[in-house]
Amino acid sequence: MIRRLTVIGVGLIGGSLARALRRAGAVGEVVGCSRRIEHLQRAVDLGVIDRYETDMATAVAGADMVVVSVPLGAMEAVFRAISPALAADAVVTDVGSSKASVMAAVEAACDGVPAWFVPGHPIAGAERSGVEASFADLYETRRVILTPVEVTDPAATTRVRTMWERCGARVSEMQVAHHDEVLAATSHLPHILAYGLVDTLANLEEHDEVFQYAAGGFRDFTRIASSDPTMWRDICLANRVAILKMMDFYTRDLAKLREMVEAGDGEALFELFTRAKSERDGFMG
Amino acid sequence: MIRRLTVIGVGLIGGSLARALRRAGAVGEVVGCSRRIEHLQRAVDLGVIDRYETDMATAVAGADMVVVSVPLGAMEAVFRAISPALAADAVVTDVGSSKASVMAAVEAACDGVPAWFVPGHPIAGAERSGVEASFADLYETRRVILTPVEVTDPAATTRVRTMWERCGARVSEMQVAHHDEVLAATSHLPHILAYGLVDTLANLEEHDEVFQYAAGGFRDFTRIASSDPTMWRDICLANRVAILKMMDFYTRDLAKLREMVEAGDGEALFELFTRAKSERDGFMG
Repeated sequence: MIRRLTVIGVGLIGGSLARALRRAGAVGEVVGCSRRIEHLQRAVDLGVIDRYETDMATAVAGADMVVVSVPLGAMEAVFRAISPALAADAVVTDVGSSKASVMAAVEAACDGVPAWFVPGHPIAGAERSGVEASFADLYETRRVILTPVEVTDPAATTRVRTMWERCGARVSEMQVAHHDEVLAATSHLPHILAYGLVDTLANLEEHDEVFQYAAGGFRDFTRIASSDPTMWRDICLANRVAILKMMDFYTRDLAKLREMVEAGDGEALFELFTRAKSERDGFMG
Repeated sequence: MIRRLTVIGVGLIGGSLARALRRAGAVGEVVGCSRRIEHLQRAVDLGVIDRYETDMATAVAGADMVVVSVPLGAMEAVFRAISPALAADAVVTDVGSSKASVMAAVEAACDGVPAWFVPGHPIAGAERSGVEASFADLYETRRVILTPVEVTDPAATTRVRTMWERCGARVSEMQVAHHDEVLAATSHLPHILAYGLVDTLANLEEHDEVFQYAAGGFRDFTRIASSDPTMWRDICLANRVAILKMMDFYTRDLAKLREMVEAGDGEALFELFTRAKSERDGFMG
């Protein structure tokens, strides 16, 4: 049971967490904090939070659980503002999709990684955004990855794990670097490829015409290219090394595929397509 | 009004065409032809066709409209079998997703491109397949591209255009080579990229784990990698030149994107993502 939860950044992710915990009866009071008062008032009106503070230090005072759900680029400033104001029993976690950069931000803000910080990442859709889009079921059966480090207090990790489990999520733990590679492969690379495809088509001379003939497959494939550009810029900067690694793997594999097409090697193409289809069908159902 | 329609290859595409024309009252008799009797019997049971023939020459005899909806690799053999048996007023069209290769197949089978052949391509989903998946609404508001050549009888083109319009489709005409480039960009390239991504992930050491953390965006992005490997092998072989051209454009653009990530150029990334998002949102709604 969380006595007082403070959510810094009350959008889809933070708002859905608050809703899920309330529904589970797993939280006493929920305090929201964010830059814009109209968003916070909306969150109060929607019953997502009980009250709000616009000053981060005031917002975390007395909270036993603090969830930081702000863009990657804003992490350091948030930790600098909240760390002196935390209660003695407070645990802090975040929801950033790139963990090494969050660790670096926290380390810089707090002069070292504190025992009360548990790095976390709920893998849940973020094409829609804002507290209006939040809903209590968002984390049901979804994955949450925690990446505690050596100095992290194991009791803090347990409290964060329990919080996510109360939302219906499946929680696992991973090394920071491993998380960043897994996410580079499954999320960051696909987003970059989709943005890249739309860019390539937009660069064609006949691009207006080309888009007119795009059908359902193209729509699905490029849906993620409608994601928030600021968020994805931040992710590309934050998870640069792992993303470059995956882009290089992909470029290498695509060059092989190009060779098969150029050589008219039907057998190799059929084999690759069959293997890919069976991998996808196997894992995605 | 079509007196007798013969559909060679009664699957999703051919079956949906027959259903749509029947519903529109635009066809008298529908004859199906395909390699497997159980599929043909199923099509009769479903009311998609009136009767079937297993011999292609017999199937087209007396038909005033023949639609060839077989894999690209089977086109030449079909045209060789049907051309001597066509009625004097017969018009033939196809549904292949790569037109230059179909023209070459028809030319080889008929000693030159005949006036009665109108190359066509309905741009409609083909992830599901088989006559069981066919439905009368498939072509409603969908695009159909016809690529008549100089020798094509304009009256034949009009008859094929009318047929598709009766199904609710929006019909346009294009040069063969232009069609092949537009489709390479909007359909063939995305399929290859999706197959490529699943392949890259499958090649990772930790690939079992990686797929477990794949979320909704990945699912959408790779949906088309669950398409039929035989069909996509045929398309890669048939539309090789245009596909290689688009792959090279894409690889060039992806290399630029990689440079932005490597340089940590947040401004350039933000600009590219914003432009891509606005292009996609503008065209896809």
